Amino acid sequence: MLNFTFSNKTRIHFGEQQISQVAKEIPLSAKVLITYGGGSIKKNGVYDQVIDALSEHKVFEFSGIEPNPSYEKSMEAIALVKQENIDFILAVGGGSVIDASKFIAAGALFNGEPWDILAKGATVEAAVALGAVLTLPATGSESNGGSVISKLSTKDKLPFMSDLVQPLFAVLDPNVMNTLPIRQLSNGVVDAYVHIMEQYLTYDVNGKIQDRFAEGLLLTLIEEGPKLFSNETTTNNNTANKYQVNANVMYSATLALNGLIGAGVPQDWATHMIGHEITAVYGLDHAQTLAIVLPRMMWEMRETKEAKLLQYADRIWNITQGDTQSRIKKAIEKTEAFFHSVQMKTRLSDYNLGEDVVDVIIEQLARHGMTQLGEKQLVTLEQSRNILLKSV
Amino acid sequence: MLNFTFSNKTRIHFGEQQISQVAKEIPLSAKVLITYGGGSIKKNGVYDQVIDALSEHKVFEFSGIEPNPSYEKSMEAIALVKQENIDFILAVGGGSVIDASKFIAAGALFNGEPWDILAKGATVEAAVALGAVLTLPATGSESNGGSVISKLSTKDKLPFMSDLVQPLFAVLDPNVMNTLPIRQLSNGVVDAYVHIMEQYLTYDVNGKIQDRFAEGLLLTLIEEGPKLFSNETTTNNNTANKYQVNANVMYSATLALNGLIGAGVPQDWATHMIGHEITAVYGLDHAQTLAIVLPRMMWEMRETKEAKLLQYADRIWNITQGDTQSRIKKAIEKTEAFFHSVQMKTRLSDYNLGEDVVDVIIEQLARHGMTQLGEKQLVTLEQSRNILLKSV
Repeated sequence: MLNFTFSNKTRIHFGEQQISQVAKEIPLSAKVLITYGGGSIKKNGVYDQVIDALSEHKVFEFSGIEPNPSYEKSMEAIALVKQENIDFILAVGGGSVIDASKFIAAGALFNGEPWDILAKGATVEAAVALGAVLTLPATGSESNGGSVISKLSTKDKLPFMSDLVQPLFAVLDPNVMNTLPIRQLSNGVVDAYVHIMEQYLTYDVNGKIQDRFAEGLLLTLIEEGPKLFSNETTTNNNTANKYQVNANVMYSATLALNGLIGAGVPQDWATHMIGHEITAVYGLDHAQTLAIVLPRMMWEMRETKEAKLLQYADRIWNITQGDTQSRIKKAIEKTEAFFHSVQMKTRLSDYNLGEDVVDVIIEQLARHGMTQLGEKQLVTLEQSRNILLKSV
Repeated sequence: MLNFTFSNKTRIHFGEQQISQVAKEIPLSAKVLITYGGGSIKKNGVYDQVIDALSEHKVFEFSGIEPNPSYEKSMEAIALVKQENIDFILAVGGGSVIDASKFIAAGALFNGEPWDILAKGATVEAAVALGAVLTLPATGSESNGGSVISKLSTKDKLPFMSDLVQPLFAVLDPNVMNTLPIRQLSNGVVDAYVHIMEQYLTYDVNGKIQDRFAEGLLLTLIEEGPKLFSNETTTNNNTANKYQVNANVMYSATLALNGLIGAGVPQDWATHMIGHEITAVYGLDHAQTLAIVLPRMMWEMRETKEAKLLQYADRIWNITQGDTQSRIKKAIEKTEAFFHSVQMKTRLSDYNLGEDVVDVIIEQLARHGMTQLGEKQLVTLEQSRNILLKSV
């Protein structure tokens, strides 16, 4: 196990009827900005529950945050926060709304041009207090300090991290998943799965607990994820079962990226870096890009990841027979089949993209300095090119 | 999955040379009280590392905290904290020192007789800030808000819980285990194992992640625990391996009782309640009592715990053949054999205690209102009597 420092301050309120907890979590004296996206929260009842809970608070609203939230839109919210002296931001949405809210929280108190936080790694020294009501389990953003923001004008999609923007609390009510479109459920399951893989599929450092926890989350997603899409689960006369499936998927996604399974072990993230570029240029959903890149990443890096790939094959898919190459191949096929089982496609060509994508993405990676990715910095531009070529 | 609220504020500094982190964690302006036990930290170098780290701080010391820490000794420390206006307590030790330090932290600012916190469940409304340097992995006390204190004069051993006494940080350096006596290593492994079982072996609420995490910790303890006692691991020319065994056991013990695996699932704790009485009257080590009670508890409550017992048999011990009764029986035998493999005895008679113990312990349980224990309150005094009788 590697040395590490870990804590997670976000208070998770998990379960039915938990949205009312926001009333206790936000000081009555606070001027609250509720941030959200395209308005689905007004259709599924979440908006009403939040407004009810905050009936005693002074509340402002900022809506229209996009998927792959933009710097440009966030800057509008930053202006509002400054103008109204907002002192608490409540993000009501999925990873995009929460990520944008983190950037808004940091940017509003940043001394200078907030883009520097992303482009130059400028230190965040203060941030507006932040809480979250999660409406889409996927990114884990509700209980970590990470955020990814896109600049539309330059097609840059860049991350930043700060403890100061980690939500103080997050409400996870599995019932919010009942009204999600299939595409968002698919995205959520795949995003969580690949987050786990980025922290698990590296090399062995005797992090036995971290391995077991990662495997536990993968197995839960494999068992429960496909049920989100089965008629048996989605019929209305099976509400209790459906709630439990939602609950296990939702909690898996949070635990996948709250720092726990990555503390004390190496981390990869090469699949994410390549995926981000595909989203930035071609607009695919984040998880769609991950499902395309990961299987080819696993194969391309099979030598340096061999021991973990064999452990993954064994403990996740019960593949113990055959030579090393064939076991790895089977485990990758199983992974891709799992993505298909949660209605996720795994090829660039599924989105009408062809080989011409490859040069464009490689140029993006070069421009962003992504020339040595992965846990051992062994994913060079040549490897990325191979991965992309095979992913068509 | 049940509704839950969970967070854990304790910042874990894990690994070699991490004790130096205490310098950054404790404000320079603080008057620090270092609390410890019988002085083993002066022999194994931990005391020197702590004193080095706090060379710029104003430091006081309080030593002599006992195993099963007493109210009486804690009251001496409370007097010192008040007299010197201590504003940070650094517990350097195992669960006993940390538990005592929690009571000291709460008692020093308590308005009234501190024993009421334990005996009457009086609310803790303030506590001195607390940090921990762990020297014995076992109780998990370093990252939770629980504490158990014994009153020597009345043979009462009682718990209290408060977020206010949860350590702000905890340093876990696996090297501190190198100088621990075998008895303490045995205690640590068994204590952690039974903590996990108390949160796992109840009834199914679809807490699939909690189950997987609990099983992951159990499997890690089963794989790594016995290595603590094997010559292969303990020879000096195998330092790296030994460190990794220590690390996985130490981290398992912390995760066993930091709230994570118990959030969203029912909890039992009947074995602990019976065990506490045995320690209070006969002075057995806490873990020794757990190893005696747990196997008989599993058998006595086999009907209400049936589904989980079969899952435990399957996932932990690969027992899938035979009828229900025989699978449960085998799983319990395996559990008891595991305790033996970490040099822990599992019978009252191993400590020269006989059937006359039974009435005494039942009377203690009755006196403390422990007449309906366990996750379904089904462990009556009659069940406890059966368990104790079969545990001789």
